[in-house]
Amino acid sequence: MIVVMQQGAGEAEVNQVVERLTKLGFGVHVSRGVEKTVIGAVGDRRAAEPDDLQTLPGVERVVPVMEPYKLASRHFHPDDTVIQVGDVEIGGSEVVMMAGPCAVESRGQLLETARAVKAAGARLLRGGAFKPRTSPYAFQGLGEEGLKLLAETREATGLPVITEVMDTRDVDQVAYYADILQLGARNAQNFSLLKELGRVGKPVLVKRGMHTTIEEWLLAAEYVMASGNHQVILGERGIRTFETATRNTLDLSAVALVKMLSHLPVLVDPTQGTGKNKLVAPMSLASVAAGADALLVEVHYNPRLALCDGPQALTTEQFGDLMRRLRPVAEAVGRTMAGAEPGVRVAVEAAETPKAPLAGKVG
Amino acid sequence: MIVVMQQGAGEAEVNQVVERLTKLGFGVHVSRGVEKTVIGAVGDRRAAEPDDLQTLPGVERVVPVMEPYKLASRHFHPDDTVIQVGDVEIGGSEVVMMAGPCAVESRGQLLETARAVKAAGARLLRGGAFKPRTSPYAFQGLGEEGLKLLAETREATGLPVITEVMDTRDVDQVAYYADILQLGARNAQNFSLLKELGRVGKPVLVKRGMHTTIEEWLLAAEYVMASGNHQVILGERGIRTFETATRNTLDLSAVALVKMLSHLPVLVDPTQGTGKNKLVAPMSLASVAAGADALLVEVHYNPRLALCDGPQALTTEQFGDLMRRLRPVAEAVGRTMAGAEPGVRVAVEAAETPKAPLAGKVG
Amino acid sequence: MIVVMQQGAGEAEVNQVVERLTKLGFGVHVSRGVEKTVIGAVGDRRAAEPDDLQTLPGVERVVPVMEPYKLASRHFHPDDTVIQVGDVEIGGSEVVMMAGPCAVESRGQLLETARAVKAAGARLLRGGAFKPRTSPYAFQGLGEEGLKLLAETREATGLPVITEVMDTRDVDQVAYYADILQLGARNAQNFSLLKELGRVGKPVLVKRGMHTTIEEWLLAAEYVMASGNHQVILGERGIRTFETATRNTLDLSAVALVKMLSHLPVLVDPTQGTGKNKLVAPMSLASVAAGADALLVEVHYNPRLALCDGPQALTTEQFGDLMRRLRPVAEAVGRTMAGAEPGVRVAVEAAETPKAPLAGKVG
Amino acid sequence: MIVVMQQGAGEAEVNQVVERLTKLGFGVHVSRGVEKTVIGAVGDRRAAEPDDLQTLPGVERVVPVMEPYKLASRHFHPDDTVIQVGDVEIGGSEVVMMAGPCAVESRGQLLETARAVKAAGARLLRGGAFKPRTSPYAFQGLGEEGLKLLAETREATGLPVITEVMDTRDVDQVAYYADILQLGARNAQNFSLLKELGRVGKPVLVKRGMHTTIEEWLLAAEYVMASGNHQVILGERGIRTFETATRNTLDLSAVALVKMLSHLPVLVDPTQGTGKNKLVAPMSLASVAAGADALLVEVHYNPRLALCDGPQALTTEQFGDLMRRLRPVAEAVGRTMAGAEPGVRVAVEAAETPKAPLAGKVG
Repeated sequence: MIVVMQQGAGEAEVNQVVERLTKLGFGVHVSRGVEKTVIGAVGDRRAAEPDDLQTLPGVERVVPVMEPYKLASRHFHPDDTVIQVGDVEIGGSEVVMMAGPCAVESRGQLLETARAVKAAGARLLRGGAFKPRTSPYAFQGLGEEGLKLLAETREATGLPVITEVMDTRDVDQVAYYADILQLGARNAQNFSLLKELGRVGKPVLVKRGMHTTIEEWLLAAEYVMASGNHQVILGERGIRTFETATRNTLDLSAVALVKMLSHLPVLVDPTQGTGKNKLVAPMSLASVAAGADALLVEVHYNPRLALCDGPQALTTEQFGDLMRRLRPVAEAVGRTMAGAEPGVRVAVEAAETPKAPLAGKVG
Repeated sequence: MIVVMQQGAGEAEVNQVVERLTKLGFGVHVSRGVEKTVIGAVGDRRAAEPDDLQTLPGVERVVPVMEPYKLASRHFHPDDTVIQVGDVEIGGSEVVMMAGPCAVESRGQLLETARAVKAAGARLLRGGAFKPRTSPYAFQGLGEEGLKLLAETREATGLPVITEVMDTRDVDQVAYYADILQLGARNAQNFSLLKELGRVGKPVLVKRGMHTTIEEWLLAAEYVMASGNHQVILGERGIRTFETATRNTLDLSAVALVKMLSHLPVLVDPTQGTGKNKLVAPMSLASVAAGADALLVEVHYNPRLALCDGPQALTTEQFGDLMRRLRPVAEAVGRTMAGAEPGVRVAVEAAETPKAPLAGKVG
Repeated sequence: MIVVMQQGAGEAEVNQVVERLTKLGFGVHVSRGVEKTVIGAVGDRRAAEPDDLQTLPGVERVVPVMEPYKLASRHFHPDDTVIQVGDVEIGGSEVVMMAGPCAVESRGQLLETARAVKAAGARLLRGGAFKPRTSPYAFQGLGEEGLKLLAETREATGLPVITEVMDTRDVDQVAYYADILQLGARNAQNFSLLKELGRVGKPVLVKRGMHTTIEEWLLAAEYVMASGNHQVILGERGIRTFETATRNTLDLSAVALVKMLSHLPVLVDPTQGTGKNKLVAPMSLASVAAGADALLVEVHYNPRLALCDGPQALTTEQFGDLMRRLRPVAEAVGRTMAGAEPGVRVAVEAAETPKAPLAGKVG
Repeated sequence: MIVVMQQGAGEAEVNQVVERLTKLGFGVHVSRGVEKTVIGAVGDRRAAEPDDLQTLPGVERVVPVMEPYKLASRHFHPDDTVIQVGDVEIGGSEVVMMAGPCAVESRGQLLETARAVKAAGARLLRGGAFKPRTSPYAFQGLGEEGLKLLAETREATGLPVITEVMDTRDVDQVAYYADILQLGARNAQNFSLLKELGRVGKPVLVKRGMHTTIEEWLLAAEYVMASGNHQVILGERGIRTFETATRNTLDLSAVALVKMLSHLPVLVDPTQGTGKNKLVAPMSLASVAAGADALLVEVHYNPRLALCDGPQALTTEQFGDLMRRLRPVAEAVGRTMAGAEPGVRVAVEAAETPKAPLAGKVG
């Protein structure tokens, strides 16, 4: 750690910093320049948050030399982490597609969507049972009923299930039903929830907050890992910027950079990242080219009836088309990608699924 | 609500939007321009999140006409809400100072700081028992022990206490000890926690997230209110921007604007908002001039020993000086402000407090 | 300057950095930690832009120790710079109000507005002859005709004039007519224009860009000063953030911070900074409390007819009211402020001004 | 255009808006809801900037229905614009690589770099003669000498040349030497320069500002086109956000979106966009997958000697490797891309170029 003192900082201030650093276990070296004094500190950055020092009297700036995360760092774990979910490997040579509706609404909606995305090449099913909504008056998800429908659909289709958890009190329940637990962007710095996810025996998708830096994102992963769960997938879903033409600004540089900084697999959510149906396909292609290990895409069987975000979702037909376009790009960057089941035209298959026996059930 | 259709959107797409709006209970009027069609919808915006419509096929943009919040809106509650905590009124003519250490560290630290800030004119004591820390390896707060020390210090000084709660599971406990519960910026969209705070019979400070818009901030307040607790204070603490010279960018326009949009009292946290000791005083003055009803300032008895953020805190001497400078500004904008106890020079008083009897430490 | 090398950077890379720094005239000290190597460089930062080094092979980060600006730095010029314009001192104990229309539209509009703002206490007249407009189809200003009207109005009222220059080719012309030349936010990094303004013998207002950091803003001032013109006023006018409820986010922390970093006077433009008529007054009060030396406010005689931005401007009545509210705040922070001419009620005076003799319009 | 009035706006305020809109040539329709009044206006948005209305008394918000640009809009020009430069087509089926040094430094540097990038498949040579530098003390480019070297190198290699112009006074000179004129990000809203570029008979690359929205970027293009020059290429080079791990945040969603909104070709600058050597390759791949028509990449023959930004540039070896990786991705999305000359291994070719005869010349 390097501490740059303000111009005019006196001996007392320098000594106070030295004292504090020594107390925290750092070895200290003071360099006095003509105009400013710089203090170098060698030791474990984890002993101190930069903010704690940054604001000592006379301190102008604290420059961390080491990353504050260890378990998530590629430096201490050079090989890629590969996470196994059923027969799917996330972080291996295959680019893994996870797809499904924004929110679980009914057995029929979920099952038909699941069958359609599976036929097109999806390897996991996504669907929200607990939904973070900006307004208290909006549909908040089916809760445990939704989790049960997800589990039921897994039985019917063989697709493992990923779903969000929003409350520390729900972690055990969600872990019981789901195959991957998702931490949403709005809880990206909900440290209580992160710790709780560290006590679970299932993989966790740690989404980046719309306001969190790459370092903070990796520290969120570190929270989960430091609590004992090393099965972490990092998820980029767009950051908040001044641009309003897209809902968020999808940060694909972060994907490439995080692959260098960390050994953890990286997923991209182009649906949330752009908020625009028409941008999902080009951003999916770009994500794979940038090095993403997985994609999380909203697909809706019949967007016209969706209670939540449906129409930014792809139709099953659009999803089948996307899968066909993704495979050559994956191969062009040396990856593989599952494709449509042989002889199947996704949209047709989906359209022909009988609707009757699935009707009149849950929702 | 106004729905602007894309150029070239067809009848089917227009009809789909009309159908959806009608289903949601809106009255609908379609205007066909030469190039674009615009659909006006009259009804309760709370029936739909804009995103739900924004992304229907053929929709270019959804423009909400009404604010999505009602309970927090000044339109439906023109008079200022005044929140009573002990003998202190927040949102009345007095600008209320809340001060104390970042984190509760020990009985001595807390009591001495509390006495000093009270002597200088503070009306409430702040102090963190549960601390949100970016790194899992940093000091996380004393937890319930910290809450007990806060309550004990309230007994000793008469100052009501404000402290943060981070986990839905801790809400009852924190509500038992504290006078005001604080929702921190990192939980600004932790909707589970917001709902839980709506079930509490004590005032809640809803801090704005570093990434949340003013509308989202008011919707966070609406979450608490819609769950039954109308005692909400709004807290501005800086937003995240590209500027790195300050930790956050304190958004004082938001203070003035929120006073117009809402009847709730507004507090500013200039310590978190700037992250710089030297900016706390000028930004406190500016906050009061902009219309803030309360300030939340970190003050530390002996910053040299702080475990957390101490040194961005003001010393008790600096705090006394700030209080003396604040009063004339408050009066210049027609407000009152508590001052130093008569005949007391804060720094001296603080310096003379015997340290021995407090030495039987806790932390 | 401190260069932090990447983990795993080899000798060759370290040597290359050392060689480059040496070549640039820095004294160099290499510290090899267990995991990373850090290179300290003592010398004149102005010899290198951090970016030039930041990107050498093996370099992780370059941390400047010294500010990159000298002439604008308070360190090398501890006393406040006071700029004299006619009998007005900018940067002295008086808070100076500059007011007038967004754009110069006609002789009548300008003269009436000038008389009204002068009566209320304004010390300079603002008004745009060259207008930066986002759209090529919008009114672009009267050009030289507008400059002439400004000069004519100065003769009639005694108010010195501030106006924007947008093109290097217009600098001499604008300098001929105006008393202070304004560099607008959109040209905040138009280095050709900055250099040209350094060759002028009149004060220059250097507005911060909506995207420029405080350091870049001070470097823009340094461009003007390094070209020979030391009469620089810094102008904060809001930065661009994710918040859309205000046009920009007025950064008042920057005002307080820049007063510490630099000896130059600092002005705030609350009209551009908020884009909302109703926020101009509270943000003006807050600016003065934060330490601003001057304010730049749009005032319009008859906003109903404005060709440009008129209505975010204050009416002359609102402006008179603002001046009355500003003075006590200025005094509360130890400053003075000009007030209304004795016995004059601004709005009445303005309303009674005969319109006929001014009717021989220009525009 | 839709004008949403504030709650409580009176008849007078509504009438004033109607009057203004009518005066500007709009047809007007007033809808009075229970709580708010909404005014629809049909006509040419170019007649008014939204800001002009947004701020009329009683107006809450102005919602443009039509895009403010026409010439740049795909709606009025559905077919892709293809720009011919020598035998290169920008905006056609080929993805065009433009490469070269950040700054022109010497004949030898330029020629060797040009030969190497040509051998690897670049179709244009980039190089800065006028350099926008944040600090007035940094190297500002060779000026006309640099332009001459570019022209000379074009003669020697056959590669057309793209270079930046920063000053209205230099436009004719740069247009004389260069094949494409570049407007840099810092001049993205330098409207004087944009107009001047509209009078030139050569293609112009309009880079997006680090702070400009997609709409403002398209309006910058509209400035050039409205002044008579329709040969415009749009350039994405990263926007400024809170993230500091990359120099800018490359906004690839903008690339895909702008291809839908406009008929103009779109280029990406991954070097400026990321500021990190190691991210140039993955972001180049992602750009092509997202639909970019061209790339602008910094390549340096011998980064160790660069005066400006050299080392974020790729080495010629890295560039050859990038070209080999790009081609399969371009083909995977149905595009073509020039490759290495047959039988040539770029790095070897470059390394063997004799250095002697090029030395001791210009600089």
